[in-house]
Amino acid sequence: MTTPTSVPTIGVFDSGFGGLTVLRALIDRLPRARFAFLGDTARLPYGSKSRRTIARYAAESAQFLVNEQGAQFLVIACNTASALALDAIQQAVPVPVLGVIEPGASAARAASRTGDVLVIATEATVHSRAYTAACQTHGLRTMEKACPLLVPLVEEGWTDHPVTEEVIEVYLNELRAEAAALGLNPDTLVLGCTHYPLLRTLIERAVRPGVKVIDSAESAAQAAAQLLSGSSGSPIVSESTGTTHAPQTEIHCFATDSVEKFERLGSRFLGRPVGHVELVDLGG
Amino acid sequence: MTTPTSVPTIGVFDSGFGGLTVLRALIDRLPRARFAFLGDTARLPYGSKSRRTIARYAAESAQFLVNEQGAQFLVIACNTASALALDAIQQAVPVPVLGVIEPGASAARAASRTGDVLVIATEATVHSRAYTAACQTHGLRTMEKACPLLVPLVEEGWTDHPVTEEVIEVYLNELRAEAAALGLNPDTLVLGCTHYPLLRTLIERAVRPGVKVIDSAESAAQAAAQLLSGSSGSPIVSESTGTTHAPQTEIHCFATDSVEKFERLGSRFLGRPVGHVELVDLGG
Repeated sequence: MTTPTSVPTIGVFDSGFGGLTVLRALIDRLPRARFAFLGDTARLPYGSKSRRTIARYAAESAQFLVNEQGAQFLVIACNTASALALDAIQQAVPVPVLGVIEPGASAARAASRTGDVLVIATEATVHSRAYTAACQTHGLRTMEKACPLLVPLVEEGWTDHPVTEEVIEVYLNELRAEAAALGLNPDTLVLGCTHYPLLRTLIERAVRPGVKVIDSAESAAQAAAQLLSGSSGSPIVSESTGTTHAPQTEIHCFATDSVEKFERLGSRFLGRPVGHVELVDLGG
Repeated sequence: MTTPTSVPTIGVFDSGFGGLTVLRALIDRLPRARFAFLGDTARLPYGSKSRRTIARYAAESAQFLVNEQGAQFLVIACNTASALALDAIQQAVPVPVLGVIEPGASAARAASRTGDVLVIATEATVHSRAYTAACQTHGLRTMEKACPLLVPLVEEGWTDHPVTEEVIEVYLNELRAEAAALGLNPDTLVLGCTHYPLLRTLIERAVRPGVKVIDSAESAAQAAAQLLSGSSGSPIVSESTGTTHAPQTEIHCFATDSVEKFERLGSRFLGRPVGHVELVDLGG
């Protein structure tokens, strides 16, 4: 398939298909770009694995998107890989790479008045302390919590189930108690996992009044659009396509396993059918 | 470390550490054997992956236990690998290989009076229909159900939590309704996942009175002890060690990732400290 050289290919990578929430937000902002999305589903979840293993998997995935799919810009639509492997990915490919952590921290800075922020994420993301480090550079204090049950609950489709409501309540109560014990007064909650936007309604219901919920998927897409618009005069950014006929966004999805599951569940995350998903073998 | 040639090395393999419930049951019956346990934690969970991927991972893991650890007998302490990769493993190594499915089906046959059996397991195990096929050869009718939330709940340590109780209730209600719709009258429930024995108390509370709960980990250990005692005159089987001094069971644990997590969570499954876990690289 030929693509005009003025339309960049944006590679979007996740360990699974949760990152499709980031792709969805990117499409809203860059409707004329060509997107190549890779879900490393044969080796998911990254969230419970070590830094060394995650870095190797993520670097191989990034190289596929750049070398095989011609991506000129990479968005790491996976908090765990952003937290543990951004350096490794940047070293593995010769294109700009954007993770989701820094945009999330930056959005938290903009939202918070007290300067105290809560973060919920996977075990590996929390263990990495990447959000705490990123928030610290913005002068924010943080309390992070791993919520390992939320991803399986989303994947089971229980996004509006009383059990999920109870699990969120348990996690947030523990998190608030830990924050209070340290004298924090948090007014912002960062969703540090690309599955969590599907629980946004339940989470917003569970937070205290006045607490703002930050979606790192949205924040990353906004940062990507700004970067691309700044670097290229952006014929592809949404706002600048008003007077021309916007073509259908070109999306190619790849997975290392479970193409059937990807196609079935992916549309919940993307908010539209994902279409044909191509199986790729990264040798893992 | 030298081992008397009369003490066989039994290799036990799982995608994670759930299979330690099988190892625990094996140690009870074969206290004088030497055990090498491998958890392929870098690539777990197998339960959501395809047959092709699972077969490759499992064959590599089996070869490590036989070629590197000298295992003379293999127990596949993983329902998913037993269901989807038993043939592939048997072709990959030159030693006897026992899975957990057939022993579970055989125990269900012994327990059931109505001939109708319920099975709960992971998505991939259920999708494979391996329990249904194995039960059919014993003249049993089955209804299987995937319960993807139970493994994460066990790994979160919520083995006695109201949320877990509610999730089990939801799953069993759905399963009973599906069985009733087909005119089945089940009196036996097979735990078709090595994590589920840790939920046995909650599950036994949730089943209807008179329904027997079969633990495939126990059933597999019993079958392994019978096979080894039949083939070698078994100086290692528990019952035959009464008059001699039983030495400490020798256990060596290996994992492809997350050694720290393995050591931390493994003792819950093994019922004793797992000791030092050695990291191995299978090249995945």
